[in-house]
Amino acid sequence: MTPPAPAPYLAAMLGKDLLGIETLPPAAIEAILDRADAHAESRHGEALEGRTQINMFFENSTRTQASFEIAGKRLGAEVMNMEMRTSSVAKGETLIDTALTLNAMRPDLLVVRHPHSGAVDLLAQKVDCHVLNAGDGRHEHPTQALLDALTIRRAKGRLHRLTVAICGDIAHSRVARSNILLLGKMESRVRLIAPPTLIPPGVAELGVEVTDDMERGLEGADVVMMLRLQRERMDGGFIPSEREYFHRFGLDAAKLARAKPDAIVMHPGPMNRGVEIDGVIADDINRSVIQTQVEMGVAVRMAAMDMLVTGG
Amino acid sequence: MTPPAPAPYLAAMLGKDLLGIETLPPAAIEAILDRADAHAESRHGEALEGRTQINMFFENSTRTQASFEIAGKRLGAEVMNMEMRTSSVAKGETLIDTALTLNAMRPDLLVVRHPHSGAVDLLAQKVDCHVLNAGDGRHEHPTQALLDALTIRRAKGRLHRLTVAICGDIAHSRVARSNILLLGKMESRVRLIAPPTLIPPGVAELGVEVTDDMERGLEGADVVMMLRLQRERMDGGFIPSEREYFHRFGLDAAKLARAKPDAIVMHPGPMNRGVEIDGVIADDINRSVIQTQVEMGVAVRMAAMDMLVTGG
Amino acid sequence: MTPPAPAPYLAAMLGKDLLGIETLPPAAIEAILDRADAHAESRHGEALEGRTQINMFFENSTRTQASFEIAGKRLGAEVMNMEMRTSSVAKGETLIDTALTLNAMRPDLLVVRHPHSGAVDLLAQKVDCHVLNAGDGRHEHPTQALLDALTIRRAKGRLHRLTVAICGDIAHSRVARSNILLLGKMESRVRLIAPPTLIPPGVAELGVEVTDDMERGLEGADVVMMLRLQRERMDGGFIPSEREYFHRFGLDAAKLARAKPDAIVMHPGPMNRGVEIDGVIADDINRSVIQTQVEMGVAVRMAAMDMLVTGG
Repeated sequence: MTPPAPAPYLAAMLGKDLLGIETLPPAAIEAILDRADAHAESRHGEALEGRTQINMFFENSTRTQASFEIAGKRLGAEVMNMEMRTSSVAKGETLIDTALTLNAMRPDLLVVRHPHSGAVDLLAQKVDCHVLNAGDGRHEHPTQALLDALTIRRAKGRLHRLTVAICGDIAHSRVARSNILLLGKMESRVRLIAPPTLIPPGVAELGVEVTDDMERGLEGADVVMMLRLQRERMDGGFIPSEREYFHRFGLDAAKLARAKPDAIVMHPGPMNRGVEIDGVIADDINRSVIQTQVEMGVAVRMAAMDMLVTGG
Repeated sequence: MTPPAPAPYLAAMLGKDLLGIETLPPAAIEAILDRADAHAESRHGEALEGRTQINMFFENSTRTQASFEIAGKRLGAEVMNMEMRTSSVAKGETLIDTALTLNAMRPDLLVVRHPHSGAVDLLAQKVDCHVLNAGDGRHEHPTQALLDALTIRRAKGRLHRLTVAICGDIAHSRVARSNILLLGKMESRVRLIAPPTLIPPGVAELGVEVTDDMERGLEGADVVMMLRLQRERMDGGFIPSEREYFHRFGLDAAKLARAKPDAIVMHPGPMNRGVEIDGVIADDINRSVIQTQVEMGVAVRMAAMDMLVTGG
Repeated sequence: MTPPAPAPYLAAMLGKDLLGIETLPPAAIEAILDRADAHAESRHGEALEGRTQINMFFENSTRTQASFEIAGKRLGAEVMNMEMRTSSVAKGETLIDTALTLNAMRPDLLVVRHPHSGAVDLLAQKVDCHVLNAGDGRHEHPTQALLDALTIRRAKGRLHRLTVAICGDIAHSRVARSNILLLGKMESRVRLIAPPTLIPPGVAELGVEVTDDMERGLEGADVVMMLRLQRERMDGGFIPSEREYFHRFGLDAAKLARAKPDAIVMHPGPMNRGVEIDGVIADDINRSVIQTQVEMGVAVRMAAMDMLVTGG
């Protein structure tokens, strides 16, 4: 059930590590998505048999870690989850020493999530195994953008010349940042909708439109991508009440009516129902592709890990 | 070393999920036990090769989770343990959204423990993969009753026309409830022995005898099933001192002498030695089948998971 | 890629369990090291296919547990990590009952770390599966001494007639104790360097030299083994400031100059850079073999587990 190995020149485009969308050529993005399509039905393969994948999550994320674990196991890898909260880092060891120690055990791949932007890039420079960024601070979360892209491509048949509205807490979201980068490379049009305090500085340079008027922002959109309100990351500044937030920026039927009639609704999860999205819309199988995103997440991670480790 | 596949009509009796003993026909119970007997010596099989089992324990239980993990791995499954205490549920996601997310990753089986009665049934209705209840609130713990039944059947040669005394903290025990249901279906006689405050209301309707006199309750019993005193679940109400409790309801040699000479002693673990059971009796290999229960636990779980996933 | 099975008489020297260096004949030590050499390049074997290894760590140790997990998986074993902090022990179960429960699930091997000296020996007497001591209190940590020995043997070509300086917190270190025992059996000369309060009583009986003068202690050493300052284990007594400690007992270039020109530098990790060792020396690939120690750790554990479980 394993698809044939990727063409070497495509794998070579990825290089040793997958750290972000920013440095990824559009052809590499398409190659990962094509391979993910081939993996989407696969339950049991041997591409990574005898290989060791270590998940190092310095931030808790049950769902993302599970997705990487399932993906690795379906490729035949030995997958290990390190409990980093109680690790040697807590005993005063540096991040780099921890990484070097694991690297010395000769894994093939480290999948790393870290609360600090840039930490995963730094780590990748120090080890000789492959490194995959599973989210670093507010910087990048490349497999999330890739799974979103695959979900869009399967629903819309293409990634270019679409209008994608990204709504909500952009400021705290590496998901938004990676998606903006990817959609820009694919020549789609991105609109950011958020209260001004939840828009990060400098975002206009990325070639996106910005508005705090949700109805205007959703006008004619092909894709409506809602973000989680990350209260746990807000320190001081503007914290709207949930009710007020839902009134202005929560996705409900009235607001969604401004988008195209066949617009799809996305959310990276976990959802706050009734805060950033009406539960009825989240569950509407004619509009919501939220479950598909999760399913494609496994396929995209299989593709990325397979190409990193066996390609080139 | 894998026994032959179960007959389809037996697997069909189980249906999609194993949620409790209450709805299980006696023939299905016997079928699971027969298959568990066949699995008891098996260390390495392929029945679930390429299948994914996810253990979702919303309540800690090292021993039960380990038993399900070993069982799944001996069937060749990929087994994942989700750390639910730090999961998205903690970030405000609903139980059902968490389950739907995992379901979208296309596992074959979810093994779920939850502190609320009925939570596992609800979850099973929402997902299309198989669900196995590993204990929900005070409701059911079907594999515990099945492993107890297998242990009894191997020691006594039958499950019918036995007198089984269940002693201790009935009120907080889904183990007791599932055992009462199973033994009733098998036409054995159940006596409950506990202080009145540790007997749940309505239990007499289940066709059992109830007493707070341990010596009378043990009279002529074939099986003595001790329960753990679950102090951590008692809120207010009667909390006996350990010494007083042991004096009246702890199993010691004098009280056990009232049971049949070949009566077996059971305990679901973990034991409070000197509280509900005298350590000497727990360790008496002529009477205690406590280690056998643990061993049969793995076999019964192999059988149940194998039949759920590959049957039908 | 699996090396041929060990000779039965060598495996028999190990017996059922690996609990410490103290009772291990020199020939058994050499046999484990030889086999570890053969495993050092192996990434994927089948020696323990269908076998179950359970890691029971009553003390956190991300790195050591990871090493045992990788080692087991590379031998083809099913490896389970038990979360002992939240286990039944917390519900009042005794250590022995917990061990008996896991033993009843018929694992092949328990890898046990425990904060109390002697706890692993006690446990090994009660179960019929193999037991490997992954560190017990201040007693022994045999695989650490074996991986240190393999690292030394690969760097120096031999284990006998070397001068090995062990520096730092000897009092709290089972690593030091196991290394002293091993190096003594191999007829190497051990010098302990530490402030008098960090030297355990009775250590002189082990045939070692003791000094609190680091420069004198390092004079002519072939191997400099630094220990971690375990502040978390110090209760009352002498606790030097980090700065003062580094000044007197931290390894820097000036002190290292007293050792032989080709002396190697070791550390069991995790390191406190700037406390017991200067970061520049830790990273000096001409002197430091710290990464090699980690790599040999996996090989030595593969060898020890393979010989315990399949030998005899």
